[in-house]
Amino acid sequence: MNADRDITETTLQDFLSALASRAPTPGGGSAAAVMGAMGAGLISMVCNVTLGKKGMEDVAAQMGAVCAESESLRLRLTSMIAADIAAFDGLMSAYRLPKGTEAEKQQRGAAIQVGLVAATNAPLDCARACAEVIRLSRRAAQHGYAGVISDAGVGVLAAQTALRSAALNVEINAPLLTDREFAARASAELEELLAEGARESEAVFALVRSRLG
Amino acid sequence: MNADRDITETTLQDFLSALASRAPTPGGGSAAAVMGAMGAGLISMVCNVTLGKKGMEDVAAQMGAVCAESESLRLRLTSMIAADIAAFDGLMSAYRLPKGTEAEKQQRGAAIQVGLVAATNAPLDCARACAEVIRLSRRAAQHGYAGVISDAGVGVLAAQTALRSAALNVEINAPLLTDREFAARASAELEELLAEGARESEAVFALVRSRLG
Repeated sequence: MNADRDITETTLQDFLSALASRAPTPGGGSAAAVMGAMGAGLISMVCNVTLGKKGMEDVAAQMGAVCAESESLRLRLTSMIAADIAAFDGLMSAYRLPKGTEAEKQQRGAAIQVGLVAATNAPLDCARACAEVIRLSRRAAQHGYAGVISDAGVGVLAAQTALRSAALNVEINAPLLTDREFAARASAELEELLAEGARESEAVFALVRSRLG
Repeated sequence: MNADRDITETTLQDFLSALASRAPTPGGGSAAAVMGAMGAGLISMVCNVTLGKKGMEDVAAQMGAVCAESESLRLRLTSMIAADIAAFDGLMSAYRLPKGTEAEKQQRGAAIQVGLVAATNAPLDCARACAEVIRLSRRAAQHGYAGVISDAGVGVLAAQTALRSAALNVEINAPLLTDREFAARASAELEELLAEGARESEAVFALVRSRLG
């Protein structure tokens, strides 16, 4: 992809083609951010539809509050589609630095570590935002208009899969970090996010299914 | 969304905004197709990268074959983004038909059934294509270049979540079908796809993780 162009300005079709191409970006990290943004967007949709329904005025304030949060998360996750590419490309540039002399080797090694920290923080941020989408989805699933409640179910599944996908991208980079304390903190935080996300997303999905028929 | 314009020609950003809006389409059905297409695309990417690697010539033929299939699935799933919208809009049009006279009621009832069959077949087709992506992903995860193997992991998770999302959309419509035989066949097929998908996607994901370190 042309780095000067914001990837979210490409068409959906071109984005999917770029994902499939042999270019390393966009890859799984960007796909995770797209899934997270779709998850947040579907929660917003459930709230937006509910807000327009007669007879549902008692949940309007709550749906408005959920929607404000899910829209903020959607925009955050949308910006992560490009952020993941930037982090990955930065790391690749570091790997391509010259390593002829001892000084070059040291410089390259340091640049790779800076790149690895960025390439760990990008998916970690994505995982955090997805965990927030999952937490938020319960209120949409509980109080949203029944006619669009399946969209809350798709939204929470998308967010949990985005979380797992982002976690996988942390797992690749964390072992290569020389800052073991940072790596351990990142892994521990992820473990918690993954466990909470798995539990909560399945509970919300079950809630959605119970409201279907 | 403007139905005259192919939704895959909109930008990623606009698609995400449209998902979040109070318009019923695009909704969870289109999001499922996007996830499935991303899953297929990531499998293609793993194959495409592997095909260009020195020393991996022994798996080139197999990667080429997998890629041909995943690209065909990606295009099929991409076309389902719009197909889901068309099916949903068709069903909504049927619900809006007049129901003043007995004849109108009968016509409307028949049109709704036609709409429900289409709105059941669309996600069922999506679920079938996702199941194929999952089956295909094992070969990419097993033989793909290790440097991009995490993308196969994200791909298989995306495909399984797309399958579950599509299944949820079948579940909404199936109980309303008067053709109970068709409804039962659709539900039985889905149960199998879901069970196989859950088992196989977790097995492939575990295989990916085992190749990470």
